[in-house]
Amino acid sequence: MVDITHKKSTLRTAIAQAIVQVSSEDTIAAIKNKTVPKGDVFAMSKAAGLLGVKKTADLLPDCHPLPIEYTDISYAIDGLQITILVTVKTIYKTGVEVEAMHGASIVALNMYDMLKPIDKGIEIRNIKLLKKTGGKSDIGTGQ
Amino acid sequence: MVDITHKKSTLRTAIAQAIVQVSSEDTIAAIKNKTVPKGDVFAMSKAAGLLGVKKTADLLPDCHPLPIEYTDISYAIDGLQITILVTVKTIYKTGVEVEAMHGASIVALNMYDMLKPIDKGIEIRNIKLLKKTGGKSDIGTGQ
Amino acid sequence: MVDITHKKSTLRTAIAQAIVQVSSEDTIAAIKNKTVPKGDVFAMSKAAGLLGVKKTADLLPDCHPLPIEYTDISYAIDGLQITILVTVKTIYKTGVEVEAMHGASIVALNMYDMLKPIDKGIEIRNIKLLKKTGGKSDIGTGQ
Amino acid sequence: MVDITHKKSTLRTAIAQAIVQVSSEDTIAAIKNKTVPKGDVFAMSKAAGLLGVKKTADLLPDCHPLPIEYTDISYAIDGLQITILVTVKTIYKTGVEVEAMHGASIVALNMYDMLKPIDKGIEIRNIKLLKKTGGKSDIGTGQ
Amino acid sequence: MVDITHKKSTLRTAIAQAIVQVSSEDTIAAIKNKTVPKGDVFAMSKAAGLLGVKKTADLLPDCHPLPIEYTDISYAIDGLQITILVTVKTIYKTGVEVEAMHGASIVALNMYDMLKPIDKGIEIRNIKLLKKTGGKSDIGTGQ
Amino acid sequence: MVDITHKKSTLRTAIAQAIVQVSSEDTIAAIKNKTVPKGDVFAMSKAAGLLGVKKTADLLPDCHPLPIEYTDISYAIDGLQITILVTVKTIYKTGVEVEAMHGASIVALNMYDMLKPIDKGIEIRNIKLLKKTGGKSDIGTGQ
Repeated sequence: MVDITHKKSTLRTAIAQAIVQVSSEDTIAAIKNKTVPKGDVFAMSKAAGLLGVKKTADLLPDCHPLPIEYTDISYAIDGLQITILVTVKTIYKTGVEVEAMHGASIVALNMYDMLKPIDKGIEIRNIKLLKKTGGKSDIGTGQ
Repeated sequence: MVDITHKKSTLRTAIAQAIVQVSSEDTIAAIKNKTVPKGDVFAMSKAAGLLGVKKTADLLPDCHPLPIEYTDISYAIDGLQITILVTVKTIYKTGVEVEAMHGASIVALNMYDMLKPIDKGIEIRNIKLLKKTGGKSDIGTGQ
Repeated sequence: MVDITHKKSTLRTAIAQAIVQVSSEDTIAAIKNKTVPKGDVFAMSKAAGLLGVKKTADLLPDCHPLPIEYTDISYAIDGLQITILVTVKTIYKTGVEVEAMHGASIVALNMYDMLKPIDKGIEIRNIKLLKKTGGKSDIGTGQ
Repeated sequence: MVDITHKKSTLRTAIAQAIVQVSSEDTIAAIKNKTVPKGDVFAMSKAAGLLGVKKTADLLPDCHPLPIEYTDISYAIDGLQITILVTVKTIYKTGVEVEAMHGASIVALNMYDMLKPIDKGIEIRNIKLLKKTGGKSDIGTGQ
Repeated sequence: MVDITHKKSTLRTAIAQAIVQVSSEDTIAAIKNKTVPKGDVFAMSKAAGLLGVKKTADLLPDCHPLPIEYTDISYAIDGLQITILVTVKTIYKTGVEVEAMHGASIVALNMYDMLKPIDKGIEIRNIKLLKKTGGKSDIGTGQ
Repeated sequence: MVDITHKKSTLRTAIAQAIVQVSSEDTIAAIKNKTVPKGDVFAMSKAAGLLGVKKTADLLPDCHPLPIEYTDISYAIDGLQITILVTVKTIYKTGVEVEAMHGASIVALNMYDMLKPIDKGIEIRNIKLLKKTGGKSDIGTGQ
């Protein structure tokens, strides 16, 4: 684990994206109409994602535990494709990119888990960092 | 959560894939030569993935806790692309697809986390189920 | 921890209740209309409760880990009072009363947490077991 | 999750209460005399509660993780009623009300779990915040 | 992780030991008289150990999650030496040696943590398996 | 849990040691040559230990959660004896001795778990604090 004892705390923001591709319009309709048997897919996956962001350091050995001061999870539907955006902020010595990406992956996996009884053709695509601010380098670059 | 009290335990297998795309041959070389500063990327990500498979039901609300009886994690390198394969087995009433996919996502995220100091252009692609056996439907279909 | 190695697995069901008392009709309206700033209170608290049921043995030292095979969480509104019902099933050697009660308490606490910015007078009342079946004694009695 | 990046850290205190009602004097005597088969109910439930306070943000999606700097757990017996008091302190940007309430609920549930083999009539009542200091509003008011 | 899908469930028992060496008779007296400021050392460390046994598979990557059906934690004092014995039972396809050893290590670490304000010379010695039954080989041998 | 609200944050370092004693030269060779069937023992145990350090406050009731800002895990082989050194740093109000010791115990237990199929005579010895700096007292003394 990288030594960050000498670093300064600054405001760090990261936005990560995951894409869930479903295979039918019926799946999109079931999500919108809240008729998926397991429950409200967007609200419950948001709950899972909020918890997932906070558990990142529990799952990734080299990841520093840090105070998550803000998380937002939003969805956009475009045809059969659902884009998940996860925004995380902290004021700390290291960034929250991996936390945002982990949150996005948990939201996507939970959507998959809730939707698989009604759609056998779902895929999770493109978990990536869209933006980060507050570290040495600003856009789309690592720690 | 779906009621599975009436279901029979059978051998279930699932294989999931995640793809990590790096941006330079140097990254591949550093992984192979075990010169990545944070440590041996494949071995440490395997450890994270083995734990991640077991924590799936802790992260996904509707996922049944189940006895993970086997997990295997392997890697294949093809140019700048690393394919992660996670195989999970159980003898239980429900399948291990989501567990395998969660394991694959954790391995991929951990590789991202360990590699980001040396490569700013990594992406995680295509977390998907390759195969499942043991439920009502066999290949590439859901619960 | 009680030794259960000699016991037989049977179908066990438990239903627990928790009551959340809010202080104003506006709070009830905000829940129903899904206008609470933190999100959909019932759906997100259900997600928290589903996870909470599964984590019971992580929090209570003497509680046996067991396969949660079904959880249902439902709500009933009566005036300013919201009744949470949590039903849990397993086929195992010991009952799921404490799991159902823990789930009910987590749902109630999460409702409190999501509602406190709009209602300062919320109370959690009466976390209790309503019903259990499958052990030595059947209605409203312990292990 | 509410954005707290702009907030100042101040000393925050919260005291929460839970009430456990037992059904017989024998139960009270067994607790006092430390003859409950599962062990010392007050000491073991205190251990569970200390851990529970720290796990609040793991269970409640919108709850910020924060540095728990002090937790105290005490008991008062009055007839068949046991009052649990949980005091939590932090120096942080948000309060510890929900942490104290979660701690109180875990202590109460653990007492229920340890006592149910000897008393089938236990109820958990009235998990509530008694006091908070350090936020915008001081007594018995929310975040 | 070793594939155990083909194995049979049998009754497995393991007993592990850890030794805590304190540096003064006053420490032993404070434990016995329950005057250690942090609380009752034996009861609280037992609670921590019961939870620790159940979390073994969360911490050790290759360890199979399994149903802990019994755990007992006992202490023996001999001069300045405290011997901790942890007994674990399951009916499963693999043994509980590591679970018993992990429980013993958590009990010992918790005693260290509770006692360090009053004794600066504590050491944890000799975490080892004393006995196992139920696998291919019976006494003091591995999986 | 001790009240630390009034304490100042300073740089704290702790180094803990655990010793794993194997029973044969073949075990040492298998570790060095990375031929242990479960995988690379040092790299995977390092991953487990990095996570274990971060989970200390989840397992020990009185332990304050704190920001782990650095962890290093190293190994030295001397004959049949493997010495594990775990170094932990934080800038906080309380020390990281127990975190370092917990990390050392998890590394040792994971080595035991990975090696037991090939060596039935492994023991874990002497989990102890070698050094601490940053608190009231500096070398080899507790909080």
